[in-house]
Amino acid sequence: MSRAFNFSPGPAALPEPVLRQAAAEMLDWHGSGMSVMEMSHRGKEFMSIAAEAHALLRELMGVPQNYKILFMQGGAIAENAIVPMNLLGGSSQRADYIDTGEWSKRSIQEARRYGSVNVAASAADTGYTTVPPRAGWQLDPGAAYVHICSNETIGGVQYHETPDVGSVPLVADMSSDILSRPIDVSRYGLIYAGAQKNIGPAGLTIVIVREDLLGRSLPCTPQAFDYAVVAEHDSMFNTPPTWAIYIAGLVFRWLKDQGGVPAMAEHNRRKAAVLYDYLDATSFYTSPVARDCRSLMNVPFRLPDPALDAAFLKGAEERGMVQLKGHRIVGGMRASLYNAMSLEGVQALVAYMKEFEARNG
Amino acid sequence: MSRAFNFSPGPAALPEPVLRQAAAEMLDWHGSGMSVMEMSHRGKEFMSIAAEAHALLRELMGVPQNYKILFMQGGAIAENAIVPMNLLGGSSQRADYIDTGEWSKRSIQEARRYGSVNVAASAADTGYTTVPPRAGWQLDPGAAYVHICSNETIGGVQYHETPDVGSVPLVADMSSDILSRPIDVSRYGLIYAGAQKNIGPAGLTIVIVREDLLGRSLPCTPQAFDYAVVAEHDSMFNTPPTWAIYIAGLVFRWLKDQGGVPAMAEHNRRKAAVLYDYLDATSFYTSPVARDCRSLMNVPFRLPDPALDAAFLKGAEERGMVQLKGHRIVGGMRASLYNAMSLEGVQALVAYMKEFEARNG
Repeated sequence: MSRAFNFSPGPAALPEPVLRQAAAEMLDWHGSGMSVMEMSHRGKEFMSIAAEAHALLRELMGVPQNYKILFMQGGAIAENAIVPMNLLGGSSQRADYIDTGEWSKRSIQEARRYGSVNVAASAADTGYTTVPPRAGWQLDPGAAYVHICSNETIGGVQYHETPDVGSVPLVADMSSDILSRPIDVSRYGLIYAGAQKNIGPAGLTIVIVREDLLGRSLPCTPQAFDYAVVAEHDSMFNTPPTWAIYIAGLVFRWLKDQGGVPAMAEHNRRKAAVLYDYLDATSFYTSPVARDCRSLMNVPFRLPDPALDAAFLKGAEERGMVQLKGHRIVGGMRASLYNAMSLEGVQALVAYMKEFEARNG
Repeated sequence: MSRAFNFSPGPAALPEPVLRQAAAEMLDWHGSGMSVMEMSHRGKEFMSIAAEAHALLRELMGVPQNYKILFMQGGAIAENAIVPMNLLGGSSQRADYIDTGEWSKRSIQEARRYGSVNVAASAADTGYTTVPPRAGWQLDPGAAYVHICSNETIGGVQYHETPDVGSVPLVADMSSDILSRPIDVSRYGLIYAGAQKNIGPAGLTIVIVREDLLGRSLPCTPQAFDYAVVAEHDSMFNTPPTWAIYIAGLVFRWLKDQGGVPAMAEHNRRKAAVLYDYLDATSFYTSPVARDCRSLMNVPFRLPDPALDAAFLKGAEERGMVQLKGHRIVGGMRASLYNAMSLEGVQALVAYMKEFEARNG
């Protein structure tokens, strides 16, 4: 087929101009005679690529100078261990976690292997369809950090403001909504994100960490995953995932050209509104998530009968809309609307949903 | 420039047909309407790509059925921790290491953080220009494993046969010579390699592990780096580096089309001979490595005066030969002759070396 409307939750759609540029530069990047994949990470060509990607990310997110930006590997699932390994070796071996769904649960489970974890609030009682209101959080003032997942990719639940946790460092897994809306980085101690949703290829992890949190690692932390070591070596302690950094840099450049994060936030609001407005109007499809906690990135919805799912997916694919199947844990459908998804794609999806409803409603 | 002769030690040259195919498939892989970078790792398209890469690697290396092939992240430097984390949690907390140079030293340094390390032999006394003869190794029969680096990328020293270490599992860092020559996998307990030298893009680590060695991990091992967990989830416990796996698969297919590993070994012997024969004939350039330990992959050599280095590199680049500068630890030049380097490239290098010698000798 020609280019599909790709609703994958991740790895996910990339901007087409980025792909075209990557294809054009594949055999000879800027007259170097090499593909980016063939460059020594210590050569002047790749050093310039990495430096530009770093600078663009710092600019796009407004990362203050007292924060390090690290390019690592292993994704958010590896960070589930790497975060506590790096932050529980200081004066406190205790951490608070907020449980908002599948990804929070996995973070909690892994962190328990490295220290004492307090689940300060949980949305379990609402079937993970909400973010627990801040007022009810039972925080430990002596915790080394408070961990949240800013957007639950599977459940489709998102924080719509940064919670105030006082002087304890706030740590956020932003894998599925980084760069989708402006945030005040200075309110976080640490932000991490797998790149494969809103940034670029799988295999690159972004870590943004306040400098005073470096140097608190547990003795068992591998050096390649010790933030202080990685920071000291400008993310080149081990060979970085060079191609993924190159593509991320192209995405950052594209994002800046689109007007930066504020423009992207407006784009994302408009796209999500098209789908949610229809979900609010129809009684054929249902959305399980509480209205004020709905994710603008991942929209799970259900058909009235799971027996219709296969026909819905088949029809979508015939119309060039792919990767709409929901996660097996929640079932149904899920439309992921990351930055690279166009308004046209969401409009096409809603048009098809209406058509399918008319035929099956 | 047009395509360079790229002597990079890693990330390194890739076969041009692989790059051409990757560029052609960038916007629409096999009619899917997606780039490989945009595919869910759990979708049928990427699952088929990963399965083919696994199968081709198993076939090319003749990996027995009682070995798992894992696709991981972090490269060999991360494995310096991940290996002892995974193997020192059983009945023995002791490991033997053979010290043949810079990469061995880094492995030893990191392993000491996880258990008791015995340096059973070292080439320090020869200035790391040899592999210590097996007869002199002081092995611990109760060790959990014996670790070697089969090819020292920086020093240019290579094992030319698999050492016999009895019933203790042999662990090898094969980052810079995997797939360059036939080996008998059954003589190893574990083989690991960063992909960025002889396989594909940086950010993918290959681990080949005998099944009976799974389940010996230390309690602090992150689940994403626990071989047993990774094996149980078919290398999809965390999102794998999908693009790197795709490119590796294309390289494996190319390698098979070239006649497989035996043909590649013959190709590599012929290439290295062109350069070593000249180094043996000239007195202008010198090679520090003992003849019977010379690497066929990485050939360090020195000019008579380091003051000539810059002119040599500049002239090489003008003739389309790039990334020849030696590692700062040993200085001088280094020509890396991985599988994707052509005989023509080595012939061009030697012709230039002769020309430079005639002008400066």
